[in-house]
Amino acid sequence: MSLLVVGSVARDTIRTPHGEIEDALGGAAVYFSLAACNFTEVRLVGVVGDDFGDGDIELLRSREIDLAGLQIVEGGRTFRWSGEYSEDMNSRETLSVELNVFEHFEPVLPPDYISSSFVFLANASPATQLSVLEQVESPVCVMADTMDLWIDIARDELVELLGRIDGISLNDAEALQLTGCRNLIDAGQAILDMGPANVIVKKGEHGAVLFTASGVVALPAYPTGRVVDPTGAGDSFAGALMGSLTRDGSVDEERLKAAIAYGSVVASFTCEGFGTVRLAEIGEDEINDRFLKYCESLQISR
Amino acid sequence: MSLLVVGSVARDTIRTPHGEIEDALGGAAVYFSLAACNFTEVRLVGVVGDDFGDGDIELLRSREIDLAGLQIVEGGRTFRWSGEYSEDMNSRETLSVELNVFEHFEPVLPPDYISSSFVFLANASPATQLSVLEQVESPVCVMADTMDLWIDIARDELVELLGRIDGISLNDAEALQLTGCRNLIDAGQAILDMGPANVIVKKGEHGAVLFTASGVVALPAYPTGRVVDPTGAGDSFAGALMGSLTRDGSVDEERLKAAIAYGSVVASFTCEGFGTVRLAEIGEDEINDRFLKYCESLQISR
Repeated sequence: MSLLVVGSVARDTIRTPHGEIEDALGGAAVYFSLAACNFTEVRLVGVVGDDFGDGDIELLRSREIDLAGLQIVEGGRTFRWSGEYSEDMNSRETLSVELNVFEHFEPVLPPDYISSSFVFLANASPATQLSVLEQVESPVCVMADTMDLWIDIARDELVELLGRIDGISLNDAEALQLTGCRNLIDAGQAILDMGPANVIVKKGEHGAVLFTASGVVALPAYPTGRVVDPTGAGDSFAGALMGSLTRDGSVDEERLKAAIAYGSVVASFTCEGFGTVRLAEIGEDEINDRFLKYCESLQISR
Repeated sequence: MSLLVVGSVARDTIRTPHGEIEDALGGAAVYFSLAACNFTEVRLVGVVGDDFGDGDIELLRSREIDLAGLQIVEGGRTFRWSGEYSEDMNSRETLSVELNVFEHFEPVLPPDYISSSFVFLANASPATQLSVLEQVESPVCVMADTMDLWIDIARDELVELLGRIDGISLNDAEALQLTGCRNLIDAGQAILDMGPANVIVKKGEHGAVLFTASGVVALPAYPTGRVVDPTGAGDSFAGALMGSLTRDGSVDEERLKAAIAYGSVVASFTCEGFGTVRLAEIGEDEINDRFLKYCESLQISR
């Protein structure tokens, strides 16, 4: 089984109450891949400028992430994002966005990616996400992420996408915005009705809620007190989730619960370092230790 | 084993986006007792005016709640609270508070309550809570609740109380306020350092976090889409929690996890009706069905 991710590769400048980093490796597809590579082979499709630099290419390659689908635009400049977190880190303000080469990103899958069995369409315009969907052949499972912007300006395409994929991960505010519901449980059900068999609503430090035909399962975040930078937590959550599903090769409710547990665990590591720093250094053993602790903490004797 | 609760008995007027009720049975000790009585014998100490009426006394008696400690003040008026919830029901505004007979409430335990093995000091001034603590003899476990007001105006007494009890349940905003921490995990640890062996931070629809010497366990709320009125959810959570601990007769981490599960389940029922309506009609079977479903949903196969 192989896992394909299509999404942004970026340079991030991040300020939190704990410090800051400048022009650091970032982007949804990067966080996703660095998380997923602990579980399975990952193929990354994205675009950067020739300013991106070899160091981070080497870092991604060293984690055995397949970069055959990473376009490098000669004379182009890499997508840049800069943001600052509030004191309690529950909200953040975007200070600047330069889409640069990402603005006209038209993902083209290398021929051997077309048969990828698991596919994640990281946050991008629904039109871009649909164009990837057109290129893959009979995948086992396609999931997508989205954001408030697309719900605002490209709702129809997003609804079309939802009718054609197996799962969606989005945050709580987005789920309410997309459905007009006042209650998250109603919102999740309403999104299920739009087509996907699995809806995963991310609630940051409060965990995630899984909606399937079998019902609703709420799972907590892995509790960590060492949160220094939440950037990429959602994308690395999705990466571990899709990575573990790909490794298992199936997507039933039991596997989805384990996948969310892995997602929560890996996201907790991500938050413990700036940018991708902590995420890039963890390995299977650390992940498994925390995963077992997480599962045990949720076992309730009757 | 017997469970004593000391706290408010009230008449509530509540408006939510789903409707309203006027002068309905309420108060922390009432919600607590109606939840706890599904697990164990409950003794309620509180105060009402002679306007309280026999109907609700009968309701409480019919659930086998011992009212020998309920003072009825001749010519007095019962504590009244009125509040309105926001559209998303995540915040509420207090429209009016009349403390009435609750203002000078001096709890006096009937002689046979003094040996109660489990004690819950519902939200009241720390001085009042300490005065109850002085009256009980070698209880197995004393837990308390508090609120922002007491953290503001009676912090020293509250800290004294924390040094003398076994557990505290408080909400997330209160935990941050009490400790000055920015992160909930740090806040829970800081409250442990103030004395209690167990700290339970309530996060409403996001569940609860348990802090003990063995570590931190986050548990989700029971997901319900039928939330019509969250009033009393926290108090009925505490009632089911303490009720199940009393039934088990012990307070180790395993029992606390099950107790939080029962608390989450009973709180979900409370939210499904106005005031005490739904809470007052549930029984052991309904609770156990939802408890088993909750525990199963948290079992993750590795």
